[in-house]
Amino acid sequence: MESIKTKAYGAKGSIRSSLGPMEIERFPAKADEVHIDILYCGVCHSDLHQVKNDWHNTVYPCVPGHEIVGRVTEVGSSVTKFKAGDIVGVGCMINSCGQCQPCQHGEENYCQGPVSWTATYNGYMKPDGSGYNTFGGYSTNITVKESFVLRIPDKLDIKAAAPILCAGITTYSPLRHWKVKPGDSVAVAGLGGLGHMAVQLAKAMGAQVAVLTTSQDKREAAEALGAHQVIITTDSKAMKQNELMFDLILATIPDEFEVNEYVSLLKLNGTVVTVGLLGSYKKPLDNMEMAKSRRSVAGSIIGGIAETQEVLDFCADHNILPEVEMIRMQDINKAFDKMMDKEVRFRYVIDMQSLKEEEV
Amino acid sequence: MESIKTKAYGAKGSIRSSLGPMEIERFPAKADEVHIDILYCGVCHSDLHQVKNDWHNTVYPCVPGHEIVGRVTEVGSSVTKFKAGDIVGVGCMINSCGQCQPCQHGEENYCQGPVSWTATYNGYMKPDGSGYNTFGGYSTNITVKESFVLRIPDKLDIKAAAPILCAGITTYSPLRHWKVKPGDSVAVAGLGGLGHMAVQLAKAMGAQVAVLTTSQDKREAAEALGAHQVIITTDSKAMKQNELMFDLILATIPDEFEVNEYVSLLKLNGTVVTVGLLGSYKKPLDNMEMAKSRRSVAGSIIGGIAETQEVLDFCADHNILPEVEMIRMQDINKAFDKMMDKEVRFRYVIDMQSLKEEEV
Repeated sequence: MESIKTKAYGAKGSIRSSLGPMEIERFPAKADEVHIDILYCGVCHSDLHQVKNDWHNTVYPCVPGHEIVGRVTEVGSSVTKFKAGDIVGVGCMINSCGQCQPCQHGEENYCQGPVSWTATYNGYMKPDGSGYNTFGGYSTNITVKESFVLRIPDKLDIKAAAPILCAGITTYSPLRHWKVKPGDSVAVAGLGGLGHMAVQLAKAMGAQVAVLTTSQDKREAAEALGAHQVIITTDSKAMKQNELMFDLILATIPDEFEVNEYVSLLKLNGTVVTVGLLGSYKKPLDNMEMAKSRRSVAGSIIGGIAETQEVLDFCADHNILPEVEMIRMQDINKAFDKMMDKEVRFRYVIDMQSLKEEEV
Repeated sequence: MESIKTKAYGAKGSIRSSLGPMEIERFPAKADEVHIDILYCGVCHSDLHQVKNDWHNTVYPCVPGHEIVGRVTEVGSSVTKFKAGDIVGVGCMINSCGQCQPCQHGEENYCQGPVSWTATYNGYMKPDGSGYNTFGGYSTNITVKESFVLRIPDKLDIKAAAPILCAGITTYSPLRHWKVKPGDSVAVAGLGGLGHMAVQLAKAMGAQVAVLTTSQDKREAAEALGAHQVIITTDSKAMKQNELMFDLILATIPDEFEVNEYVSLLKLNGTVVTVGLLGSYKKPLDNMEMAKSRRSVAGSIIGGIAETQEVLDFCADHNILPEVEMIRMQDINKAFDKMMDKEVRFRYVIDMQSLKEEEV
């Protein structure tokens, strides 16, 4: 099968290298696959971590991007859900074993197959080191198995929808799993790409929503997103006053943080769910504080494919959209710098037209 | 009201002091109280921690003991549940606010009143530092509010029943809260006073029970208690083989430990509940390991009064009894030493007759 020469932006090989233009190979859709012309791609904190090799597993060259919105250009012979012209999305996964219990129950994100799920980028390595390296959405097209492709509802603005595919599902899934219902008190720690979706989603589920942040200057934005309360976590008096107040705290902070200060804010039987941190907390958990109100600390990672479709539809039904700033592919390194400086409000989305027009 | 001069054993004032005989004051039963002649008192790891001031909150003199079995000698005028001659128990609490939501729901152990629940010993200090210091069961009698007194079922051997009042309820409560049911896989980490109850209780609930221990020489005892499997936690191959195997892990280890190695053994949605540690874990929790199977780490502390009656009745119904070694009050310091050396199998119980006969 002849490959499709594809423009991309990636990190070529060294740690902390900047991203630059490169050419990658894609392939036409096989029977069960969909070929997609990429229109927009969100910029997730994971992209930054992966490029910098923060998780010590980056395979270079690395082409990030797992919040992909595009238009179907070709479908394989057995594809039934999509046709050319459809607006579709691809999130964090493009495959999983399909056989294990979680896969059988639509929880591909918890796949227990030999290589777990295949990440949209920096995926698929077998235990023996063989396999191939997947390239993500910082590119002009991609070919993905039908069963890992999402339908973007007509009602959603396709320029802004991309972050739902990671930031949206990553916060929606634990809100559902921990059964947030009207009247519950939910706090969202960290108001970035994930956090600003969590606030809107929890509110739409009927919860009273607080934002926990170190930045006084995020107060206005939090309130504009619908937060009922903003707690500045460096204000020890405010933290003390809010002890025993929350059923669920969703921690969306992407770097190591001190979880014990959030634990104290939980009600009896409350849970801190951490979705942003793919590493260890700053300090050991204090079990005295946990045990005295039977509290839990949990982790959750993205969501299954069916649930990703659910959050896309939920956002369309509830008029929820990520707040995005469009950038050109060529500005990605500046965007990474601003993300590190916490200057983005709330998600950069790359307009892939900028890459298509670039001479490589 | 005239006080009752009472023989006791306590730590008189300095950290790490040994216990010695002392005289304390008790009072006759008020209208809603029960006066109890103490027959037996279990020796809990907490007694050791408290005497050594490991939690930095010990008020001296300190008379430990919160696994008390005795005979009612006198009841107040409004007492209806008990009469003189009844065999009763007193556990970790002797009072709570009675007003807060947890108290109203029979979860006095999670009392959110201004001073939380009153511990049977080293209790009750108000936030302003006033109040009084409660003295526990290392003594010949005690006076307790009717609503915090338990009935010891006739079927239970009263010499061995005492540890159910702390070790029993502390493990029973989380097994119930996390809804252990027939066929579930439960692991018990640590096979001491709490752990040996947890194995028996989980098995009686129909679970497949594993014991996680560092001591190869506890294998036989674990199997004798009914464990289906013993995993030596220092055996990295065995630990690897048991990844993703358990719905619930009950960690009964009384000192700081490395919780991450247990997290990896949990199934999708599994929980490590720590009941033995009233401090911090050894290392920060690794959220990557948590998130990839949506695992939880939780804390739980003893249980409510109604639930304590339930576990006493459950033990009677299922022929479950703590394995105890009877000691004399005068041998308590030796017993503490052996507990620190992990030599006890599995719980010392003090025969209080030895104290009654002692010349103070």
